[in-house]
Amino acid sequence: MIKEKRKVEVIGLELPIFKGNECVNLAEIIAQYPLKDGDIVVIAETLISKLEGNILKKEDIEPSKEAVELAKKLGKEPEVMQVILDEAKEIVKIGKNFIITETKHGFVCANSGVDESNVNGIKPLPKNPDESAEKIRGEIEKITKKKVGVIISDSVGRPFRKGAVGVAIGVSGILALWDRKGEKDLFGRELKTTEVAIADELASMANVVMGEANEGIPVVIIRNAQVPFGDGKGRDLIRNKEEDVFR
Amino acid sequence: MIKEKRKVEVIGLELPIFKGNECVNLAEIIAQYPLKDGDIVVIAETLISKLEGNILKKEDIEPSKEAVELAKKLGKEPEVMQVILDEAKEIVKIGKNFIITETKHGFVCANSGVDESNVNGIKPLPKNPDESAEKIRGEIEKITKKKVGVIISDSVGRPFRKGAVGVAIGVSGILALWDRKGEKDLFGRELKTTEVAIADELASMANVVMGEANEGIPVVIIRNAQVPFGDGKGRDLIRNKEEDVFR
Repeated sequence: MIKEKRKVEVIGLELPIFKGNECVNLAEIIAQYPLKDGDIVVIAETLISKLEGNILKKEDIEPSKEAVELAKKLGKEPEVMQVILDEAKEIVKIGKNFIITETKHGFVCANSGVDESNVNGIKPLPKNPDESAEKIRGEIEKITKKKVGVIISDSVGRPFRKGAVGVAIGVSGILALWDRKGEKDLFGRELKTTEVAIADELASMANVVMGEANEGIPVVIIRNAQVPFGDGKGRDLIRNKEEDVFR
Repeated sequence: MIKEKRKVEVIGLELPIFKGNECVNLAEIIAQYPLKDGDIVVIAETLISKLEGNILKKEDIEPSKEAVELAKKLGKEPEVMQVILDEAKEIVKIGKNFIITETKHGFVCANSGVDESNVNGIKPLPKNPDESAEKIRGEIEKITKKKVGVIISDSVGRPFRKGAVGVAIGVSGILALWDRKGEKDLFGRELKTTEVAIADELASMANVVMGEANEGIPVVIIRNAQVPFGDGKGRDLIRNKEEDVFR
């Protein structure tokens, strides 16, 4: 009989549905779950933006001439386009029906990560996902006295491959990029693949449980992943323009 | 007290260490584990290439002039470079110390996916990962009478973001690209993010358990992921050159 060598659990929590701008403390809610040392808490960025009040109302936005023109070209609403431009540090690529930008945070993604799903309004990415992750981790650890990791996740498309996958835009308490240089393989050879985007893999892992539609699971606990504690950040995963041969 | 809404298990199996070219039936070994309907079996491509005898010996390879020159330029061995070129349909990008190609299968990755870790020799990707996945799934289902999915996984780097993540290069029995167009979000709005690369997310999920070094876990079972059955293929995830704005 074949044995189990390792088992990781990915647990989607049953939370109330938040509409946005609620006065709730997410860490307190998550801390009601019996967390263990080493657990990794993955939170969908949508929920963070909602609870940080980072949802914009269409009527409050005055689109510029540039936004109006681009919106027309790409079949978007001018107000949404204005937010996309406001969130962008640089436009990376514009096509017939898409716009890919580098956001203020440094993420390269469609529409500057601006989204209208699962919210009432126009939702940019959280202002500072690493800070949000750090804050929530601190609060959870204070309440529970357990050492956990926190990841704020998003779904993004990518070159070369179809479909969106989960990535980590905010990280706290664990490594984001795991450098395994110098470690040995099964036959004692030094590893070739040295840098693992472990926080992105954990975000994809959580995404399988979160879903993308009306599953209503914005918080997932990953148990027993054995990821090293450390001062990882979501920004550790950003490849700078200068180092990126595809920009 | 907060409740669990969903729980997915990611189980790494304890297997013997294979050196390559062993005469074993992988499906028979995996089928010893008490599989359930809906389980997804993720197998590292390294193991597939090993068991399919797709490991090349340096002394059997005669590097061309082109391979010798490129090898010198990139600091690689000429024989390895020859295999990289043999596996490539097209060179996508060459830099000071890297080569990114489109493989015969259509995957865009460094070194045509050719690797020397965890094997004794030079290891190209499996010849036809979708066929390998299909074959193993058929054998597992025949033995166990359970309906399972099979994914053959690899680790790849990507533009815009640092570090490698797991992706699915072979798929059988489940959807690879999950089109959620027309589904509704929590507030009844139609979804914007419509295509989920679910097989890539599952491969990343498995990668967390497999590790990259000497963990010795080349086979992972994902239980309760609730991914739709279907005729998905690894090649469904390939974005054709013509549709890829970053090529």
